[in-house]
Amino acid sequence: MPAAALRGDALITRMHELIRDVPDFPSPGVGFKDITPLLADAKAFAGVVEEIASRVDGPVDLVAGTEARGFILAAPVAVALGAGFVPVRKHGKLPGPTAAEEYALEYGTATVEVHPFTVPRGARVLIVDDVLATGGTAGATIRLFEHCGAQVVGLSFLVELEFLHGRDVLAGHRVESLLAVS
Amino acid sequence: MPAAALRGDALITRMHELIRDVPDFPSPGVGFKDITPLLADAKAFAGVVEEIASRVDGPVDLVAGTEARGFILAAPVAVALGAGFVPVRKHGKLPGPTAAEEYALEYGTATVEVHPFTVPRGARVLIVDDVLATGGTAGATIRLFEHCGAQVVGLSFLVELEFLHGRDVLAGHRVESLLAVS
Repeated sequence: MPAAALRGDALITRMHELIRDVPDFPSPGVGFKDITPLLADAKAFAGVVEEIASRVDGPVDLVAGTEARGFILAAPVAVALGAGFVPVRKHGKLPGPTAAEEYALEYGTATVEVHPFTVPRGARVLIVDDVLATGGTAGATIRLFEHCGAQVVGLSFLVELEFLHGRDVLAGHRVESLLAVS
Repeated sequence: MPAAALRGDALITRMHELIRDVPDFPSPGVGFKDITPLLADAKAFAGVVEEIASRVDGPVDLVAGTEARGFILAAPVAVALGAGFVPVRKHGKLPGPTAAEEYALEYGTATVEVHPFTVPRGARVLIVDDVLATGGTAGATIRLFEHCGAQVVGLSFLVELEFLHGRDVLAGHRVESLLAVS
C-alpha cells in the first residue's frame, strides 16, 4: 500500500524543490525553512523517514522528537526502527512529574521537558528534529536525557544551517543531516 | 527490525495499562489522558499506528494531524498508508499564506490553520488526533479542509470520551476510536 519512497539523489533533489524559504519568519531577519510541502508529498515524506532511520548506527530504544515539528519526523522514525517515542515538550505542556532543562535564547531562556518515567536508565535515545540551527535546543535535549540516565546515541536533522555552527555545540555526538545549507 | 506490533485484545489491554489518568490538568476539574507511557512502549505504539491505518476505508491522499499530540500519531499513519502529512496548527505557527477556521471554546475562541497549497482540491483527507472530547477542534478541522476543496474521508482517535458526545458534532463523517471511555 505505501507509496515508493524516494531515495538517494532523487530524494535530495526533491527536498530542495519542496522546502520553502520564508524570509523574516517568525521574526525580522530570520529565514525560516518551511517543510510543509515536503511533508505533504507522500514519496518524499516516506523517503526522509527511511533515510533518517537508515543512518542510525546500532540499536535504538527510544526516538525523541522536539515540539512540535520534530514530532512529525521522529514518530515515524520510531515506528520504522521498532523503538518507542518520547515527546520533548516546552514547559507546562506535560502533566508532572517532569524532568526539565533550561537553556539560553538570544533574549531570555527556554525549557525542554520530558516524562522521566518514560525514559529507562541506560535507554539508547536518538534525537530527531527538522532543523539544526544554533544547537541550543538540541544541546539542552541531550543534557535532559543524560540527566535521566539515558544515553544519546545520535541526533538526526532534515536540514542543517551550517553557517550557525550548531554541530560544534553537539561535539562528541553523532550528528546526521540530510541537507546542509551553507 | 521493527518490534512486533501488539494487536487485537492484547493491544487494547496494554492501552488501558499505559494511558495515565491525570486529574485537574491542564485546569481544575479537567481529567487529562496522558499517552506518553503508551508512546514510549515500542510494541504498543506500533500497534496503535497499525490499528488506526487498518481501519481506513478506501484510499487516503493526506493524513492530517492536530497540533501537537496529533502529529505523533498522524505522521506514522501517513507513512503506513503511503499518504502525505498535513500539520493542522494553532494560529501564528505557519508562515503565510494560510487557510484558517475559528471555533468556540468554553471561554473565547481558537483557530486552526493549514497551508492551503499543500492540500490539492479533491484530496481525500484522514484526520487523526489522540483524544475526541467535545469535537470542537475536530469539527473546525473538517470545515477547514472542506473550505480548501478537500474531502474528509474519516477521523480516527486513540481515545473517545463518550460522555462529551463529540461524535454528535462530527455526524455524517466516519469516526473511529480505539478506546471508548464512558
